[in-house]
Amino acid sequence: MAPEATQEDIDNVVELVEAVGGNAFVSRGVSRTIVGIVGDVDDFDALNLGSRNGVLQVMRVSAPYKLVSREHHPARSVIRVGGVPIGPDTLSVIAGPCAVETPEQTLRAARMALEAGASLLRGGAFKPRTSPYSYQGLGEEGLRILAEVREETGLPVVTEVIDPGHVDTVAAYADMLQIGARDMQNFALLQAVGRAGRPVLLKRGFSATVEEWLSSAEYIAQRGNLDIVLCERGIRTFETATRNTLDISAVPVVQRLSHLPVIVDPSHSGGRRDLVLPLTRAAIAAGADGVIVDVHPEPRSARCDGDQALMGPDIRELADAVTILSPLMGRTRVGPAADRVRSHTP
Amino acid sequence: MAPEATQEDIDNVVELVEAVGGNAFVSRGVSRTIVGIVGDVDDFDALNLGSRNGVLQVMRVSAPYKLVSREHHPARSVIRVGGVPIGPDTLSVIAGPCAVETPEQTLRAARMALEAGASLLRGGAFKPRTSPYSYQGLGEEGLRILAEVREETGLPVVTEVIDPGHVDTVAAYADMLQIGARDMQNFALLQAVGRAGRPVLLKRGFSATVEEWLSSAEYIAQRGNLDIVLCERGIRTFETATRNTLDISAVPVVQRLSHLPVIVDPSHSGGRRDLVLPLTRAAIAAGADGVIVDVHPEPRSARCDGDQALMGPDIRELADAVTILSPLMGRTRVGPAADRVRSHTP
Amino acid sequence: MAPEATQEDIDNVVELVEAVGGNAFVSRGVSRTIVGIVGDVDDFDALNLGSRNGVLQVMRVSAPYKLVSREHHPARSVIRVGGVPIGPDTLSVIAGPCAVETPEQTLRAARMALEAGASLLRGGAFKPRTSPYSYQGLGEEGLRILAEVREETGLPVVTEVIDPGHVDTVAAYADMLQIGARDMQNFALLQAVGRAGRPVLLKRGFSATVEEWLSSAEYIAQRGNLDIVLCERGIRTFETATRNTLDISAVPVVQRLSHLPVIVDPSHSGGRRDLVLPLTRAAIAAGADGVIVDVHPEPRSARCDGDQALMGPDIRELADAVTILSPLMGRTRVGPAADRVRSHTP
Amino acid sequence: MAPEATQEDIDNVVELVEAVGGNAFVSRGVSRTIVGIVGDVDDFDALNLGSRNGVLQVMRVSAPYKLVSREHHPARSVIRVGGVPIGPDTLSVIAGPCAVETPEQTLRAARMALEAGASLLRGGAFKPRTSPYSYQGLGEEGLRILAEVREETGLPVVTEVIDPGHVDTVAAYADMLQIGARDMQNFALLQAVGRAGRPVLLKRGFSATVEEWLSSAEYIAQRGNLDIVLCERGIRTFETATRNTLDISAVPVVQRLSHLPVIVDPSHSGGRRDLVLPLTRAAIAAGADGVIVDVHPEPRSARCDGDQALMGPDIRELADAVTILSPLMGRTRVGPAADRVRSHTP
Repeated sequence: MAPEATQEDIDNVVELVEAVGGNAFVSRGVSRTIVGIVGDVDDFDALNLGSRNGVLQVMRVSAPYKLVSREHHPARSVIRVGGVPIGPDTLSVIAGPCAVETPEQTLRAARMALEAGASLLRGGAFKPRTSPYSYQGLGEEGLRILAEVREETGLPVVTEVIDPGHVDTVAAYADMLQIGARDMQNFALLQAVGRAGRPVLLKRGFSATVEEWLSSAEYIAQRGNLDIVLCERGIRTFETATRNTLDISAVPVVQRLSHLPVIVDPSHSGGRRDLVLPLTRAAIAAGADGVIVDVHPEPRSARCDGDQALMGPDIRELADAVTILSPLMGRTRVGPAADRVRSHTP
Repeated sequence: MAPEATQEDIDNVVELVEAVGGNAFVSRGVSRTIVGIVGDVDDFDALNLGSRNGVLQVMRVSAPYKLVSREHHPARSVIRVGGVPIGPDTLSVIAGPCAVETPEQTLRAARMALEAGASLLRGGAFKPRTSPYSYQGLGEEGLRILAEVREETGLPVVTEVIDPGHVDTVAAYADMLQIGARDMQNFALLQAVGRAGRPVLLKRGFSATVEEWLSSAEYIAQRGNLDIVLCERGIRTFETATRNTLDISAVPVVQRLSHLPVIVDPSHSGGRRDLVLPLTRAAIAAGADGVIVDVHPEPRSARCDGDQALMGPDIRELADAVTILSPLMGRTRVGPAADRVRSHTP
Repeated sequence: MAPEATQEDIDNVVELVEAVGGNAFVSRGVSRTIVGIVGDVDDFDALNLGSRNGVLQVMRVSAPYKLVSREHHPARSVIRVGGVPIGPDTLSVIAGPCAVETPEQTLRAARMALEAGASLLRGGAFKPRTSPYSYQGLGEEGLRILAEVREETGLPVVTEVIDPGHVDTVAAYADMLQIGARDMQNFALLQAVGRAGRPVLLKRGFSATVEEWLSSAEYIAQRGNLDIVLCERGIRTFETATRNTLDISAVPVVQRLSHLPVIVDPSHSGGRRDLVLPLTRAAIAAGADGVIVDVHPEPRSARCDGDQALMGPDIRELADAVTILSPLMGRTRVGPAADRVRSHTP
Repeated sequence: MAPEATQEDIDNVVELVEAVGGNAFVSRGVSRTIVGIVGDVDDFDALNLGSRNGVLQVMRVSAPYKLVSREHHPARSVIRVGGVPIGPDTLSVIAGPCAVETPEQTLRAARMALEAGASLLRGGAFKPRTSPYSYQGLGEEGLRILAEVREETGLPVVTEVIDPGHVDTVAAYADMLQIGARDMQNFALLQAVGRAGRPVLLKRGFSATVEEWLSSAEYIAQRGNLDIVLCERGIRTFETATRNTLDISAVPVVQRLSHLPVIVDPSHSGGRRDLVLPLTRAAIAAGADGVIVDVHPEPRSARCDGDQALMGPDIRELADAVTILSPLMGRTRVGPAADRVRSHTP
C-alpha cells in the first residue's frame, strides 16, 4: 500500500480479495503496510488491484504456470522422440542442416550428424526469415526429403512449423515439431501444436524471460501435450560481438523450475562457427540434457546461416566433446538409433 | 579482411562477388584491407562471405527493405482508414478498450474515445496473452460488437488478428488490422494480412530493432499492401520501473528511413495510467503522426490491462493535450468522422 | 517461502526478523506461505534471509533511498546554480560545447547558448573517454577558460569532474559539478562531491535502473549535499539506430519518486544532430525541468562528439521550442542571467 | 555516402582523409557509393566525418585497442600473481569471502579456499555498494587482515580498490589489484592502477561491450602495466531470474581478440549459490583460464552477498569440478603455493 493509504483503502483491498475466494493478510509497519494475498491468481488479475485507491504496487510471488512446473511434478521428465529419449540421464545430440536444400545435401548432412554422435536429425523446410527477400525454404518438398533421409539413416526428424495451418502437414512427416524463437509467443501456433500429437521443441524467444518461456510451454501443455523439450538459443542484449548472448544460467534455472528437459543451441546463439564447440562444452558442463547443432557438408554454399555450420574437421571434435563430457555429468550419450527406425510409423 | 589474409584470399572474394554480378573495390592499408561491395544484397547473402578464407567480418551498409524505404519513395505517405487519414499533416487519436467485453462497455468506451478527440476506435476481440489462464477475448462475438458500435458512433474500427486463419473473418468486420508486438515476426500472419485488402497497424516487437520492424513491414508490402501504419509501443530493457521502455527516438528515426506513418502507444509502453498523458504529450512533441490509447469506463473491472486505461477525468486532459500541441507541430487534429460512416462498407 | 518449507523454517524466519527489531506477518495459503516483513531494511540485509532453509525468494518492497525520496519530502525541490533556479516552475536550458578547446571556441559556443535561451553554460575540461587514444580535455586550463567566459557572458558554469582528487580544484572554478554516466556508481567520487559545497548534476548511468540512480543521489545527499539535479541521458539497449535509448518515461517516473529536479540530455542520448530538436521537444512535453544541449560553433572541427552538436541554424529552432512549449507546461523559461553575474563569487 | 551525395561531397571526404595522411578508396555502385578509409583512426575521429555533407554513416572496422590486442601479440600471455601463473596452460581458482569481516572469518574462508584448490585468496576491504546504507568494508584494517592470512596460508591476495587515492595503500598490501564492474570505466582509477606496479584483475562492467572492456584494459596497458587478467562477471539484461546474465561466449570471443587471460566469476553473475557449481563447470568447459568464487564459513551471517557464497559441503564439489575438468581442457590445476610464500615481498 502507498504510505498515504487509509484504513478504508486497506479494508477495501481485503474485501475484494475475499469476495473472489482469496485470503488477505495485513502486515502493518511504521512507514508501510503490506497485504499478502493467497488464492487463485487468475481471479486476482480481474480485480485490477493496481488501480485501487491506496495501492502502490502489486507483486506476484507465485509462478503463472502449473502443468510444466516442477512444483506439481517434482521428477524430471523424459521425452521420447521416435523412440529416442531426452531427459536427465542422457545427453542427446540433434544435428543437421539449418535448411533442407537438396536430397544430397540433406543426406550428407545427416551422415555428418551420425558421425558427430547425433540421435536426431534437424533440418528446416519452412524457414522464418527476417527479410522477405531471404531464402524461405522448400516447404512440403523439404519435408519429403527429410522423411527419405530418415528412412536411409534411421534418424528421427525434428523440423520447424511456422503456420498453424501447416501443423497437420508437418506432423505427418516429422517426429518432433520445432517452434522457433520468433514464434514463442505465437499463441495460435502453440495451441495448434498442443493438439498435434507430436513432441514439441520449444525454443526460447530471444527476448523472453524464463517465466514467459515456461508460460508458452504451459499453452502447449494445456492442450494435452506434455511432450515438450525446451531449447535455450541465446537472448538479445546490447553485446554485438555475438549474434545473441547464450544464457547458460537458464539451463540450471529452468531445470529447477520445470520438469521438462532443456537443451542448448550453440549454433544460433553465437552465430559463429568458432564458438560452437566451446559453447557445446559449456552447455554439457552446465547440465543441459542435449544440444542442437548446425552441420553442413558445404557451408560456403549454404542457403541459410552457413557461417555457423560445423564442417568436416569439426565433427570429430564435437563427437569427442560429447563422448568425454557426458559421463562426467552422469549421462549416457544416446547413440544413433539404427534399429529403432524399423518400428517407426510417423 | 583479416590481417593475415593473402592476396589469393582477396582475389577469391572479388571473384565470387563479380560472379554474381556485383562490383568489388579493394582498399588496401598498412594493417588492413577492406573490400567494398556493391550490387544485389540477396545474391551476396548466398556467398557466405563470412566463411571464406581471410575474411574477418562482413558488414552490411544498405537497408534490407525497399518498398517501405523513404529512399525509394521520398514523400511521406498518408494512409486512409475508413476514410480517416493518418499521415504527416494530421494528428490521429485511436482510442478504445484494451478488450471488448460487452456491447455496453464498448459503446461507453467509444463515447469516451469521441470525447477524447479520437477518430478511430480500437478494441481487442482476439487477445494474445502471455498466460493461457488469462482472458483471451470474445472472438467473433467481439467483432460483431465493434461493428455495431461503429454504426452507432461513426468510428472506424482497428482490431487485432493473431491467427492467419482468422484474417478473412477479422477483415470482414474491421477497417484496420492490428498486428501485435508478439506477432511482429509471425511471417505467416504478415503475409496473410498483406493479401487482406485492409490497412494494417504494425506494432513494433518489444525486442525488435528498427531495421527488423521495417523488414516486417516489407513482408506486408511485398504482398501488395502498402497501407501500413507503424506503432512504437516500448521496447524491452533492463529497467523495471515501467512495463517497457518507450523508445521515443524511434519516431524521428523511422520517419527518416521510411515513408510510412508512425504512431505511439503510450498505454502499453508504460503500463501505468499516470504515465499515459506525459507520454502522449512527448509523442506528439517528438513528431508522431498519432497516438493509440486505452480508455475504459470502469478500469477496475476491466478484463485486461485495467491499470493503464484512462478514466473519466483523464479524457479531457487527453483532448486538451492533442488540441493544444497538434497545431504547434503543424498538424490538424482529425475529428470524429460522423459523416464518413455512411459511405462505409467494410 | 518454498512449497516444501516446514513450520520450523517459517518460525525461524520470524524469529530472526524479530531479533533485529522488525515485525513479521505470516500469510498462509493453500500452496504457498508468504512472510511480510516491516522494519529497518539494513538490519534485514544482514540476515541473508535468501540463504535460510525454506526460503524461496526475498522481495524488497520499500525503496533503498530516503533523503532524496518524495515520501519524506513531498514538495518538489528548487536547486539554485549561481543564482539560476532549476525546479518545477521553470524550464532551464544548459548549453555549451562538449569539450572546451580554446577560449574563442568556448566564447562563441557560450554566445550560441545565450541565443538558444540558455541560463547555464556547460563545457568539459576533464573528459572521460572510452579509448585512451581519444581527446581527454584541457584539464585546469579548460576550467580557467570557462571561468573567463562566465565573466564575459554571465552564464554560470557546469562542468564534469572525474577524479575525487580533482573535486576541490573543479569546485573552485565551477558553479555546478557534473558526474558523468560512467561515474554514476563511482562511490568515492559521489562522496567527494557530496562534501564539495557545490550543486551536483548527476547523470544516469547508461545501464542504471531508476532505483540505482536515486541510490547514487542518496550517496551525495548523505554527505550533506541535497543540491542535486538528475539528468536522464539515454540507456543502453539492443537498438543500434541511436547511440543510447532516451528513456523519456524516466522523467515522470522519477518526479513521482523523488523531489529532485530532472532534466534531459537529448544530445548524448541520441548521438545524432537530427534527433536533438525532436527529443528536446519530447522532454519538455513529458515534463522535464530542463534540458542540457551540445552546441558548437564549428561542429566539423570539434574534438569531441561533433556529430551531435547543434549548429547555427538549429539554435533559433531550439529557442523557439523552449519558448513555445514551456508556458504550455506551466513553466517560465529561465532567461540569461546578465545581472546575476555581478554577485557571483564561486 | 547518402544516395543524394554529390561528386563534390565524395571528393571532399577523400581530400579530408588524405590531408591527415590516410588513404581513401571510392567504391561506386548503382544506388550507393562507399568510401573505404585506411590509416590512423585517431586522426580520422577528429574529422567528424559523420557531419560532412553527403555522408550517411561512418562504420569503424578496426579495433580501438592495440597493446592488449592479439593482432599485435599473437601468443596468449601468462600473468604471474605472487608467483602464481594465470594463463593458457593452467586453471587458476581464486576464492575467498566477498568482504573481509574479521581475522577469524577471513582465515577460515582462506582454509576453505585451499580445500577448494584455490591458489589465490580474494577478499574485499573497500566495498563499492549500490546503497550508502549497505556495509562498506573495513578499509585498511581489512588489508592488514588479508596480509596476515597470506602469511598464514601462503595464498597471494587479490583485493579491490575503488579510489585512485587509495591505490598506493592497497598496492602495499595486495598481490593483485581488482577493478570492480562499476569502475570499469573509472578512467582515473584505471590510470592509477596502470602505474601501481601490481597485476590487475579487470572485471567487465555489467553493461560494457567486449570492445569497451578491452579499451579499458588498454588504459591500464598504456601506463606501462600489461599484467592484466580479465574477468567476465555477467552482463545486465532483461532477465530477472539471475542477478546478471553470465556471458559465457565472452570467454572464447575475448581469447580470440586479446592475448590477456580471461577468468569467470560464477558467484556474482548468478547471485545464487545453486548456480555457482554449474556455472563454474561451464566456465572451465568454455575454456576459461580460471574462476573466482565466493566462499564463506558462515554465509548466513555474511555482511555482503551471503546468498551466493559456497559453504562447507559445496567445497569438495568445487574441487572435484576443477580437478576433473581441467585436464580435459589441456590445463594443469594450479595448486596451493605453500613454498612460494617465503619469497613473497609485496
